[in-house]
Amino acid sequence: MPDVIAFGEAMVRLATPHFQRIEQSRTFDVEIGGAELNTAVGLARLGRSAAWVSRLPDNPLGQLVANRVREAGVEPRVRFTDDGRCGLYFLESGASPRASSILYDRKDSSIARVQSGDFDWPTTFAGAKWFHVTGITPALSENAAAVTGEALRAAKAAGVRTSIDLNYRSKLWTREEAGRTMSELLRSCDLLLASEPDAEHLFGITGRDFAEVAARLIDTFGVTMVAGVRRSTPLVWRNTFGAIGFTGGKLFTTADYEVEIVDRLGAGDALAAGLIDGILAGDFQYGLDFGAAMGAIKHSIPGDLPWISRGEVEELLKGHGLRIRR
Amino acid sequence: MPDVIAFGEAMVRLATPHFQRIEQSRTFDVEIGGAELNTAVGLARLGRSAAWVSRLPDNPLGQLVANRVREAGVEPRVRFTDDGRCGLYFLESGASPRASSILYDRKDSSIARVQSGDFDWPTTFAGAKWFHVTGITPALSENAAAVTGEALRAAKAAGVRTSIDLNYRSKLWTREEAGRTMSELLRSCDLLLASEPDAEHLFGITGRDFAEVAARLIDTFGVTMVAGVRRSTPLVWRNTFGAIGFTGGKLFTTADYEVEIVDRLGAGDALAAGLIDGILAGDFQYGLDFGAAMGAIKHSIPGDLPWISRGEVEELLKGHGLRIRR
Amino acid sequence: MPDVIAFGEAMVRLATPHFQRIEQSRTFDVEIGGAELNTAVGLARLGRSAAWVSRLPDNPLGQLVANRVREAGVEPRVRFTDDGRCGLYFLESGASPRASSILYDRKDSSIARVQSGDFDWPTTFAGAKWFHVTGITPALSENAAAVTGEALRAAKAAGVRTSIDLNYRSKLWTREEAGRTMSELLRSCDLLLASEPDAEHLFGITGRDFAEVAARLIDTFGVTMVAGVRRSTPLVWRNTFGAIGFTGGKLFTTADYEVEIVDRLGAGDALAAGLIDGILAGDFQYGLDFGAAMGAIKHSIPGDLPWISRGEVEELLKGHGLRIRR
Amino acid sequence: MPDVIAFGEAMVRLATPHFQRIEQSRTFDVEIGGAELNTAVGLARLGRSAAWVSRLPDNPLGQLVANRVREAGVEPRVRFTDDGRCGLYFLESGASPRASSILYDRKDSSIARVQSGDFDWPTTFAGAKWFHVTGITPALSENAAAVTGEALRAAKAAGVRTSIDLNYRSKLWTREEAGRTMSELLRSCDLLLASEPDAEHLFGITGRDFAEVAARLIDTFGVTMVAGVRRSTPLVWRNTFGAIGFTGGKLFTTADYEVEIVDRLGAGDALAAGLIDGILAGDFQYGLDFGAAMGAIKHSIPGDLPWISRGEVEELLKGHGLRIRR
Amino acid sequence: MPDVIAFGEAMVRLATPHFQRIEQSRTFDVEIGGAELNTAVGLARLGRSAAWVSRLPDNPLGQLVANRVREAGVEPRVRFTDDGRCGLYFLESGASPRASSILYDRKDSSIARVQSGDFDWPTTFAGAKWFHVTGITPALSENAAAVTGEALRAAKAAGVRTSIDLNYRSKLWTREEAGRTMSELLRSCDLLLASEPDAEHLFGITGRDFAEVAARLIDTFGVTMVAGVRRSTPLVWRNTFGAIGFTGGKLFTTADYEVEIVDRLGAGDALAAGLIDGILAGDFQYGLDFGAAMGAIKHSIPGDLPWISRGEVEELLKGHGLRIRR
Amino acid sequence: MPDVIAFGEAMVRLATPHFQRIEQSRTFDVEIGGAELNTAVGLARLGRSAAWVSRLPDNPLGQLVANRVREAGVEPRVRFTDDGRCGLYFLESGASPRASSILYDRKDSSIARVQSGDFDWPTTFAGAKWFHVTGITPALSENAAAVTGEALRAAKAAGVRTSIDLNYRSKLWTREEAGRTMSELLRSCDLLLASEPDAEHLFGITGRDFAEVAARLIDTFGVTMVAGVRRSTPLVWRNTFGAIGFTGGKLFTTADYEVEIVDRLGAGDALAAGLIDGILAGDFQYGLDFGAAMGAIKHSIPGDLPWISRGEVEELLKGHGLRIRR
Repeated sequence: MPDVIAFGEAMVRLATPHFQRIEQSRTFDVEIGGAELNTAVGLARLGRSAAWVSRLPDNPLGQLVANRVREAGVEPRVRFTDDGRCGLYFLESGASPRASSILYDRKDSSIARVQSGDFDWPTTFAGAKWFHVTGITPALSENAAAVTGEALRAAKAAGVRTSIDLNYRSKLWTREEAGRTMSELLRSCDLLLASEPDAEHLFGITGRDFAEVAARLIDTFGVTMVAGVRRSTPLVWRNTFGAIGFTGGKLFTTADYEVEIVDRLGAGDALAAGLIDGILAGDFQYGLDFGAAMGAIKHSIPGDLPWISRGEVEELLKGHGLRIRR
Repeated sequence: MPDVIAFGEAMVRLATPHFQRIEQSRTFDVEIGGAELNTAVGLARLGRSAAWVSRLPDNPLGQLVANRVREAGVEPRVRFTDDGRCGLYFLESGASPRASSILYDRKDSSIARVQSGDFDWPTTFAGAKWFHVTGITPALSENAAAVTGEALRAAKAAGVRTSIDLNYRSKLWTREEAGRTMSELLRSCDLLLASEPDAEHLFGITGRDFAEVAARLIDTFGVTMVAGVRRSTPLVWRNTFGAIGFTGGKLFTTADYEVEIVDRLGAGDALAAGLIDGILAGDFQYGLDFGAAMGAIKHSIPGDLPWISRGEVEELLKGHGLRIRR
Repeated sequence: MPDVIAFGEAMVRLATPHFQRIEQSRTFDVEIGGAELNTAVGLARLGRSAAWVSRLPDNPLGQLVANRVREAGVEPRVRFTDDGRCGLYFLESGASPRASSILYDRKDSSIARVQSGDFDWPTTFAGAKWFHVTGITPALSENAAAVTGEALRAAKAAGVRTSIDLNYRSKLWTREEAGRTMSELLRSCDLLLASEPDAEHLFGITGRDFAEVAARLIDTFGVTMVAGVRRSTPLVWRNTFGAIGFTGGKLFTTADYEVEIVDRLGAGDALAAGLIDGILAGDFQYGLDFGAAMGAIKHSIPGDLPWISRGEVEELLKGHGLRIRR
Repeated sequence: MPDVIAFGEAMVRLATPHFQRIEQSRTFDVEIGGAELNTAVGLARLGRSAAWVSRLPDNPLGQLVANRVREAGVEPRVRFTDDGRCGLYFLESGASPRASSILYDRKDSSIARVQSGDFDWPTTFAGAKWFHVTGITPALSENAAAVTGEALRAAKAAGVRTSIDLNYRSKLWTREEAGRTMSELLRSCDLLLASEPDAEHLFGITGRDFAEVAARLIDTFGVTMVAGVRRSTPLVWRNTFGAIGFTGGKLFTTADYEVEIVDRLGAGDALAAGLIDGILAGDFQYGLDFGAAMGAIKHSIPGDLPWISRGEVEELLKGHGLRIRR
Repeated sequence: MPDVIAFGEAMVRLATPHFQRIEQSRTFDVEIGGAELNTAVGLARLGRSAAWVSRLPDNPLGQLVANRVREAGVEPRVRFTDDGRCGLYFLESGASPRASSILYDRKDSSIARVQSGDFDWPTTFAGAKWFHVTGITPALSENAAAVTGEALRAAKAAGVRTSIDLNYRSKLWTREEAGRTMSELLRSCDLLLASEPDAEHLFGITGRDFAEVAARLIDTFGVTMVAGVRRSTPLVWRNTFGAIGFTGGKLFTTADYEVEIVDRLGAGDALAAGLIDGILAGDFQYGLDFGAAMGAIKHSIPGDLPWISRGEVEELLKGHGLRIRR
Repeated sequence: MPDVIAFGEAMVRLATPHFQRIEQSRTFDVEIGGAELNTAVGLARLGRSAAWVSRLPDNPLGQLVANRVREAGVEPRVRFTDDGRCGLYFLESGASPRASSILYDRKDSSIARVQSGDFDWPTTFAGAKWFHVTGITPALSENAAAVTGEALRAAKAAGVRTSIDLNYRSKLWTREEAGRTMSELLRSCDLLLASEPDAEHLFGITGRDFAEVAARLIDTFGVTMVAGVRRSTPLVWRNTFGAIGFTGGKLFTTADYEVEIVDRLGAGDALAAGLIDGILAGDFQYGLDFGAAMGAIKHSIPGDLPWISRGEVEELLKGHGLRIRR
């Protein structure tokens, strides 16, 4: 009985080595990634049992994804099917003044063809404590949006707390579509992870600062907690990264970490993992601190997945310094 | 004004290194390949100017394909479009008793969405001497089949000789569909490359031997020349490879080469290149010999493309031996 | 509740690339391997739920092993400890006339320091159907031998069938030590995997042929089934591989496969997996055939682990041929 | 009929991976590079048809260079010869306080043995709009200097505008030799790319600032435009990069970009490409801005060649920011 | 007759590529390293003949170490033995806020099993000018500590000057053990390399500044020179590095270099090499400057070993700048 | 005082990975090789102290060669100079029916510019037992031929036995030039390694069989021993390899080994090493057997150098078989 359930797509990630452009590349590094999976892995790394629900093609690429999910400590609850393909994305890492960029090739993936009834949600949620999904899953297809709704409602019905990372992807749907669908889904959400721009673009919600925006999101959708990333991007290889949250009428912030960037992806997902872990432990501030530290460390690790241990996050929170550890 | 025009799809080829299964792989080698392109490259390597007509997505993967086509000496006459994706295939090389295998991910590619009118065939064929296509192109979609027909008819109208490699792909269409469509296309074909099993499965044409089958294909479709591969497969790393042909009522054969296999793909396409080159030079037997030698050498070269020079084929035909060349 | 339990050591395997000698190497490929684990992975690949019981250091190498065990589909039931280190082995692959060779660096590993009581065997075996161990585990230390004995007796007490692969390792113990300990352990064994030389060296049991040796092993130790590998080694890159078995007074044999060798390790362990699967399904002959085919395919796959699907073994048994599969 | 013609040497570039010293290296990455080619590639990337005139040995290294020239979108107008070798250079990338460094092995290259008459310049320039060469080509040999002069004069005779990048290389010739030869060549030059130190060392031309130096270069040699790089080098991995130009009595400057350096080579050549493109479009300031942005981006791309699209330069000029692009 | 003798352990260094965590790694880069060896290599690179005394297992890993020692220009005076193993360490390089870290696997190494009498120290030191050892060697085992003492006393008896780098390793022994043993060994030491924290933790020696601590170390142990690293660690990829020394009642300092870090290991050992070289040449200040520059450059070079030439250190001391060197 | 002295060129060897053509390659593997060096390394591997005399450019490539020579256990007696370059060769490994091939780029190397007086031969040979050179060294230049003659005469004058491997390279000189020069050099030769075709082409010496040719070589030139390789080349990856010798009027032969070929180069040089070692030990037959076994094993090792131990050759001579060695 896993404590945490996540639902979404994981893709095979094909990254060019050493800052090469895709056009000039002769090899790709093969990893997997997907926002919900990344968060589930983060929670598994912290010692929470976690399962990831998805749909994959019954071919070697689908198997590769499931293998790697297990490798990272998460139980794959995957429906292998003959319809649809395995989503892919191609990554080229940049250097100032060239930003990193992603080319998605995820259309027609097996998870986009998910059907109502493919998963037995009540059984899935029996004994679980948390359900996590993002705004990417419902953006994949109308079916995926419908199933996401079913899952969220089933979670709430089972007394499972839920989180949604808004994660608006403009390549997948319009702001209007996203706003309409996410408004509905947020009715079943406890913790909302969102940026101020997404709040404005999807829901027209603005404010003087994060606290005000968060308060309005809480008022509008009935979520109880809102959190977000605080990032500055002075250079491609150097950012600052921290977190900000709002719940119970109070604003919470964390340290901002100076990060040297090995891999730009999955930091927000790692933050979500740390935060959910803290909330499950009953301490929102600690969770936010933990998530910020975890997200900061994530930038140093190749791939989407947060290969981080609880111990090293704790040491960062204690301020262990940057000297080599022997 | 290229001498040779080919029309078809080229895919990005993602191969696991060193016999790894796709499931276990951490890097993929990135090459390109496509039956018609492979033949065009072979002809370019022999000094024939060659162009490849296709449709690719206007993104880094599409550009990668075009870059590599140029690298290999062929002029890409590509329509870059916003619809469709770049076809991909994943290759794992085997060892006895495990055969090599391919996982295609080519559905919904830009070339499958080709439209009548996308290419100005009369202009394309002006001054050309040969047009080459395979049974894969019409299998991609009904549109692709229709445009293949247009191209073949335009070629004949322009006095350009044509070749079709039957290349039946059961994943793409049924025998019936293939038989019906290819029967039509063969009306505009001079040189048919085909195996005996394909002749039987698509057209129900059988015979005691290759000569008889070829004679019936000539009778049935009005092609003038038929040729095919002669391969034995005792092991995955060791095959024999030769060619056989029939034209003007006569059977032509070549030496059978013992081949040590670095890369199994593209040998038949290299054979077609050598044969077409010989026919263009007016000597079917020499072309068949040349094609067989070129196809044999192709097994020793990584990737789909025949990185072979005319000189080294000629030396193989002279029997240069296998000692290291300094 | 896994169907199959295996107990033993898995090491980090550090292999030189492309036939390099260890002395000259600049990179090592990192895999994991261990005879019992390899068999458990084979069974998991065939759809049997499998767990692997072991002891590993609580450090990144220990975690790497556990991660990869999960990746391969087996549940790691690992006790992470602060004593002992992670066993390693260094592999260099050869070419005729240089044999492949292994340099072990496994002394003082965490599993060698296993203590009676480290594992709750009755709970482990509840609901299980099969327990597999090899003669390597008891060779690691006296403690390991004692715990192996406990495990085997607990398995029998729980009604779980057992297999032991004799696997004599002369670097770890003498023939006398091995003979004494293994004689004792075989009292709790149903299926014995053994070679004729090992039977002679450890137990002084000889015979005119495999059947006679097997019959005597059955008489002496009370096992019910005996099986072994049938291999010829004409070259380093080319062997033949088959299996032979004896049970119920009858001799069973399989086809001998011509194998091209990508990786020499784990073939016997894959054979064990196929055979156990067959026995669990109630068909010794089918299991032996299946195991031989699985072991043959294993030679084509890099690493110790059998990344093989049930489907492809079945197709080999049907004689699918060696042509590329599209 | 290409719009742009470049003339010079391209070498095979052998770079150590990951900051290794040449002495300790076990693999080299294989790219090609050459100042004139780099600029031609930049222009091709911006949509200008470009050809590169050179001389290469008729061997696999010479073919490799030609293949890659085509891959990058430039037409190689190469005379393959039996005399001379393929120029090589070995690159090791540094980190503060160790600068990157190059070991040239280009002596006796085929292009250094170029003969008057090897190229039919009038035909080459028919229909062309621009001819680009650098001070490296004439430095290769007396023959090369003579042929460079022929080419420049033929270009002017054909009404083709010309650019010379001064690019003084002290390993190839003395300041006096360079000063004498370049003074002569500049008589046929429209756009001069030069640094202040080179202007002083070769021609003894100094001034208070770039404008004054440029004005004197214009007065002395009759060129109409002068431009140069503006770079600061606080660290090996971090520079600032911009451009400065002078024409029609006016000084032009651009933004200075903070660059994180993946590859230090080819930035000035990319600048030249952007500037020439702008001049061809009739806008010196836009060309300078475009060139500066293009040169800045070049630092982020492995190899000498500017794998950059017009679109991304335009977006940098608009100030798109450094966040990951999805 | 080498000028310089070093005594200690060298390990095979297995580093994950590109910032990977050990847990996720699929290949390791294979180098060697050891504090005393690193310093000996530094001296050899500066033109001093150097030998390295150690004990290694008589297997391919031991041979690999000896091969690489020779490659780096140092004469291995190695006793190959059948007891003990080859020490290993695993390195993962970090990025802010994750520090780099090392996992040692050196227990039970051949050198830890060294016996009094294994080396003929009087012969070893005949004609030598300097002996270097660190606080790591005596920490390996009681035997190793005893032999270190023998060596130091033999060196002094032979009129050879000596240096000890304190290098306290808390994983190998306690502060008390280290304090006791090192106090004894320092009686035979001329040059002590030490940090202020180590002086305090091992000997309880503190002071207002480095000068005061050094003066007390000199008073207490009778060493004549003390030197140390001056490092700041604002980020993982960016440090400052300089040196500080004290002898003859005077404090010596050097420039602080801004370093971009490719490899964090061996900088202090390179500093020791430069300083010893300077002392041998009779100039402490020059040696300290040279050592600081050499240590700074070392950060830019992969592996433990300082692949640096005397010439490039001299140029850094002259302030050559960071532009690419052609 | 080394036992064995070799004199010749070593080149940096740049090999394409995995059977790639040079034209298509993106990385080269970097090794070193040279016939005389290869033999010296073989002798060092067998425990003979060996030095290699040569001339290299004083740049990182020259240093790389010297580093690797030391790594392989041979003392480099190298004159580093400012004139000339480092010889290079490019290797592409083939597969039937494509032979492996080498592209040399060694013209104008430092060793070709050797001057009489560059080496103090009497000092070099003091205490030595054997001097080895090949027909490649005198082919490099007239100077190199003259210095080779000096060296051979100095060796004989010092009572050092000598060997010459005829090794005719048609790219470097004509048969006539080679015949004339080698005839002269053979006057100072004890052991001649030669093939029957070379004996005919250079000296016009033929015979019914190897014995007759060898006897005539002995008669003509006064050498005392003649030996050669016995190789068949049925495939590129599979050869047979043995040796044949003649001395004292008697013919000596060895076993023929079936070899699977990882690297085709250096087998004859390894044979020479084994043979010289045997002759030094007073047993021509044992040396020939040893050399044949060593040469056979060499085919299994990447690079030119024979990373082989005496022990494993002895085991091959005993017939150890091809099973994996644990």
